[in-house]
Amino acid sequence: MASALATLKVEAILVSSPASIRYLTGYAGSNGLVLITATESHFFTDPRYATDARENIGGKVHIAKKPLIDEAAAVIKRKHLRKVWFEPSWMQVETFERFKKAVGDKCKLIPSAGFLEGLRAVKSPGEIELIRESVRVNSEAFEKVLRRVQPNVREIEVAAELDFQMRMLGAENTAFETIVASGARSALPHARPTEKQVEPGEFLLVDMGALRQGYCSDMTRMAFMGPVTKKARELYDAVLEAQLAAIDVVKAGTPVRKVDGAARDVLKKHGLEKAFVHSTGHGLGLEIHEMPRIAKKDKSKLQAGMMITIEPGAYIEGFGGVRIEDTVLVTETGCEILTPTSKELVELA
Amino acid sequence: MASALATLKVEAILVSSPASIRYLTGYAGSNGLVLITATESHFFTDPRYATDARENIGGKVHIAKKPLIDEAAAVIKRKHLRKVWFEPSWMQVETFERFKKAVGDKCKLIPSAGFLEGLRAVKSPGEIELIRESVRVNSEAFEKVLRRVQPNVREIEVAAELDFQMRMLGAENTAFETIVASGARSALPHARPTEKQVEPGEFLLVDMGALRQGYCSDMTRMAFMGPVTKKARELYDAVLEAQLAAIDVVKAGTPVRKVDGAARDVLKKHGLEKAFVHSTGHGLGLEIHEMPRIAKKDKSKLQAGMMITIEPGAYIEGFGGVRIEDTVLVTETGCEILTPTSKELVELA
Repeated sequence: MASALATLKVEAILVSSPASIRYLTGYAGSNGLVLITATESHFFTDPRYATDARENIGGKVHIAKKPLIDEAAAVIKRKHLRKVWFEPSWMQVETFERFKKAVGDKCKLIPSAGFLEGLRAVKSPGEIELIRESVRVNSEAFEKVLRRVQPNVREIEVAAELDFQMRMLGAENTAFETIVASGARSALPHARPTEKQVEPGEFLLVDMGALRQGYCSDMTRMAFMGPVTKKARELYDAVLEAQLAAIDVVKAGTPVRKVDGAARDVLKKHGLEKAFVHSTGHGLGLEIHEMPRIAKKDKSKLQAGMMITIEPGAYIEGFGGVRIEDTVLVTETGCEILTPTSKELVELA
Repeated sequence: MASALATLKVEAILVSSPASIRYLTGYAGSNGLVLITATESHFFTDPRYATDARENIGGKVHIAKKPLIDEAAAVIKRKHLRKVWFEPSWMQVETFERFKKAVGDKCKLIPSAGFLEGLRAVKSPGEIELIRESVRVNSEAFEKVLRRVQPNVREIEVAAELDFQMRMLGAENTAFETIVASGARSALPHARPTEKQVEPGEFLLVDMGALRQGYCSDMTRMAFMGPVTKKARELYDAVLEAQLAAIDVVKAGTPVRKVDGAARDVLKKHGLEKAFVHSTGHGLGLEIHEMPRIAKKDKSKLQAGMMITIEPGAYIEGFGGVRIEDTVLVTETGCEILTPTSKELVELA
């Protein structure tokens, strides 16, 4: 970290994004701030977290009774720092104005532009294990609930059951609001669960993730209420083919747009190019959306240790949509699909 | 709204707080922005919400393919607005810099300092009904779960059950992370539920709220595992006396510090002044913490239609804590306690 700062010619970085604070210190509370200089790490929190912080967080721990930003500014002044990075997408104008005033004219505040996000994109072995655990909890909850889904159950009931099972299996929360969408509603890529009942002859789309020890998982699976119709089967098979094709090209060094393109080409072949209205995937970790984006216009390349989703979909208004999504670890030689759940289209009775 | 702007000598306000956007337009999605001028209301969102917004939102609806802030700035320029309020605690530096550049030098951006929060503090009859519903769902879920709590159940299981029941009864989510804290952990005012089991001879503190149709409820109740001990009973009775004393003085026109003082005086009488480490309550509505704060140093007065919590507590390290909390509507003549749940100290077997 310190050497990275030296290369970039700033003296310090003030970290205010909760996920990056957790990444650097393990702190998961609601009021923390981190200042990293070439030689030191400072953590700021309020008296509620004093005992916990002193026991568990390395570097200098400051317990502040005033706003944390004032305390961080005081350290910056005391050390005569002249160039400090801050995170412009993780600081409200009100806090920034206070910060600027407190550090004074001699210190230049520079937007940090994704430095920590870049570090976080490549996961450590410890992080990979935590994500593996999150994926396991997620898939176990899915298995428990899916086999009990009966005709005419409401979407919100299925969602509530999934969330409950994740919690009972050790998740502290969901990674995002669980999506349960049936019938024509499955064609809305970000549908919230409603009072609608899952009826015979309908797709059931479940997009869910666990949050466990701070780390996210993300999976989408499809089921069909009753015998699968020909049209549903064709749509499903096309998306599955696209998903497998994308996974097939995942490997360290591959441009992300090539992964996106692999899925897009398959769907195009099936005349479904326009039905695929989002990108193929995204990084995940302490946040559900992290770097990299697996998108058509993105110019980055995959690196070993990146954790990404592969989730092409095809959505047909008025009929329904299919999305299939795994959590995948990029390796030097290819990838490991972490999600253990079968990708067979489940027929519910 | 327009007349309020005229009085305040600004031409427009750009609203970026999700709760205030929902308050003004009903929009509950993740990407919206509102610009209100003396004569017009503009709503900005992206194509995902186009149909929904055009059908349900009044005023001018702008569907933007670029960042919403650019679109809002374009309207400001087109109308030659010179003084526009924005919400400094609801705008990230990155967005603000972009906004400032886009509106140009001729437009002055002024921090709005709680204008909408002030409007939102007094609830409309429609809002009061929604909060009443949220309170009902919350209390029903509590009743369902509490009577089934057995010795040695883990805190996280109780929390998961409560959250599940709220969802099944119609909540879209919890209003905040449900607190279930037992034994000595009940002395931590903001404990997260853990793997700890609820053991005989321990307090069980439950602080929970439902989010229903966007509106929050908030309640804290206490139970005791097994026969209540003398020390536990005394602590409970003191906090209950304090809570009732505070409720007793709630009325339109009363300074909030008088409400806080009423609770504090009772706890002082019982030698528990220092055990009461937080303020007596807070407003709630679309957010779980809104204006007013019911605190010692706050200078505001209650108004009819304000929705507040009354929640004194006393916390004894190593032994346990007691907090009792209702959601309360301020009226001209006093108040209405919305929370229907009994305040008897529940003895679990």
